[in-house]
Amino acid sequence: MAQDLRAEAKANAVTFSDRLADAVDRKRSQLVVGLDPRPELLPVELRGDVHVGRASAAEACARFCRGLVDAVAPYVVGVKPQLAYFEALGADGIRAFEDVCSYARHAGLMVIADGKRSDIGATARAYAEAYLEPRGGEPPLVDALTVNPYLGSDSVEPFLTACRRFGTGIFCLVKTSNAGGADVQDLTLSDGRQVWQHVAELVAAWGEELVGERGLSSVGAVVGATFPRVVAHARRLMPQAVLLLPGIGAQGATPADVARAFTSGPASALVPVSRAVIYAFRVDGADWRKAAGAEAARLRHEVWTVSGW
Amino acid sequence: MAQDLRAEAKANAVTFSDRLADAVDRKRSQLVVGLDPRPELLPVELRGDVHVGRASAAEACARFCRGLVDAVAPYVVGVKPQLAYFEALGADGIRAFEDVCSYARHAGLMVIADGKRSDIGATARAYAEAYLEPRGGEPPLVDALTVNPYLGSDSVEPFLTACRRFGTGIFCLVKTSNAGGADVQDLTLSDGRQVWQHVAELVAAWGEELVGERGLSSVGAVVGATFPRVVAHARRLMPQAVLLLPGIGAQGATPADVARAFTSGPASALVPVSRAVIYAFRVDGADWRKAAGAEAARLRHEVWTVSGW
Repeated sequence: MAQDLRAEAKANAVTFSDRLADAVDRKRSQLVVGLDPRPELLPVELRGDVHVGRASAAEACARFCRGLVDAVAPYVVGVKPQLAYFEALGADGIRAFEDVCSYARHAGLMVIADGKRSDIGATARAYAEAYLEPRGGEPPLVDALTVNPYLGSDSVEPFLTACRRFGTGIFCLVKTSNAGGADVQDLTLSDGRQVWQHVAELVAAWGEELVGERGLSSVGAVVGATFPRVVAHARRLMPQAVLLLPGIGAQGATPADVARAFTSGPASALVPVSRAVIYAFRVDGADWRKAAGAEAARLRHEVWTVSGW
Repeated sequence: MAQDLRAEAKANAVTFSDRLADAVDRKRSQLVVGLDPRPELLPVELRGDVHVGRASAAEACARFCRGLVDAVAPYVVGVKPQLAYFEALGADGIRAFEDVCSYARHAGLMVIADGKRSDIGATARAYAEAYLEPRGGEPPLVDALTVNPYLGSDSVEPFLTACRRFGTGIFCLVKTSNAGGADVQDLTLSDGRQVWQHVAELVAAWGEELVGERGLSSVGAVVGATFPRVVAHARRLMPQAVLLLPGIGAQGATPADVARAFTSGPASALVPVSRAVIYAFRVDGADWRKAAGAEAARLRHEVWTVSGW
């Protein structure tokens, strides 16, 4: 069964994980810059119109994100636009999101939409269609989408189908970087494991049918860099998953905390950093593009070094 | 602490749960019609342009949903637009979503956005802002939003803050209606409970600060009608939560399966039905508005009867 599905995936498109692995090799970077545009935090030169209305705030956010893409493109393997910030600006915000995704893909970057989507049956299929499938002759809007696993295997299946057919990927939340994640994810099961460990095993199983030529699956996992021992354990439970490791920068973790995530290959983990890069100008007063580029260059080097590749 | 927060909620706005309880009394209905518009399933008279592009498909979906609102308004307490179907149409779809939400609220209906959103920190605040807070002088886009609890208490807190300040509500996923939900939600914990039972207790605790004059909390819970014994158990674990009970109709449950959900009052449970109402015309060939209205009237009566109020 998994073999048939793997064959289907290969026949259809280069898998997400293979494209990612090639991009990591080419860029020598496992850094992903998170695009979290807040109108009130934009550089002054862009902020002029944001109080006029949502349409101009959305356009200002799009300009900010396009400028960031230009600034960080040499140093990152991808960007991770956070849907919530675009949704907060309504339909205009979603137009900006589409614009930014398209711009980043044309710049040769992988785009991971951070939406933490999840639903069942036909509704999950609609989310897959929205993000991971070609729309009206255009390629999929993004390369990968973050997905919440609380609704179980049948809720994830429509996303897996889209990934197989169209060479896209997902990152399932396993152990999130916030302290409160423990409320559900760290509960101890009757067999002594924690909930997140069980979810990690589910993710590993979901990903088996989507392992590419480079040995990595297009079903990745989100594991908070804020829990270094968990990162190492997650690596063992999901040896073929690409780990997306939030928490470095504003949340307090450092690249050294995630060194052990890279043992399955240079592309086996990605380090997303948002605020520390995109709002770097607010700390040192430099030009916002230069500040973002410099911080991305620095982090890229630091992460590549700890990765040991 | 909970008392201070309750006082804050009262000072700010009529709580979601009180507005809902009044509406249920007035309409004598606990029925909520799910708005899941699929371009390819629309009535022929609306479907004309849907292949021209996303903008016309989105407009056709908006016309369909507005027509449904008109048709079912006398029989339902609210509508539940499913964000995934609108997102699948991109920014045009979100424009249609905003239009439909506004139309339904003007028709006097409660609007529950089914987005199953979840994130942490500032990102969760952005989701709250998108749906549950006033935007640019306009009221909140919807009355309530469905929320995924996998990320724990601190991820839910920004939604609770919005609910307190602006009289809106959330429905947390506890036990979903799909079979696969068992993969995570039915795991047995070391103390013998199941994960969903623990989540139910969290939801009850989160809701304490948002209990209104009518004794119900603005923090509700999603519990699948497809598991009648779970519904009864969930009622006991969350005595003040409004239970949103999907699974009736296309998924095979009947109103009789959820009778025990209503023991905390006529508004203590809501029955959302989507396909069986909105696509009723595809079964009997009647005018789509008439078919939807007739099915809504029938279900409203059936649910009210089993509720025992």
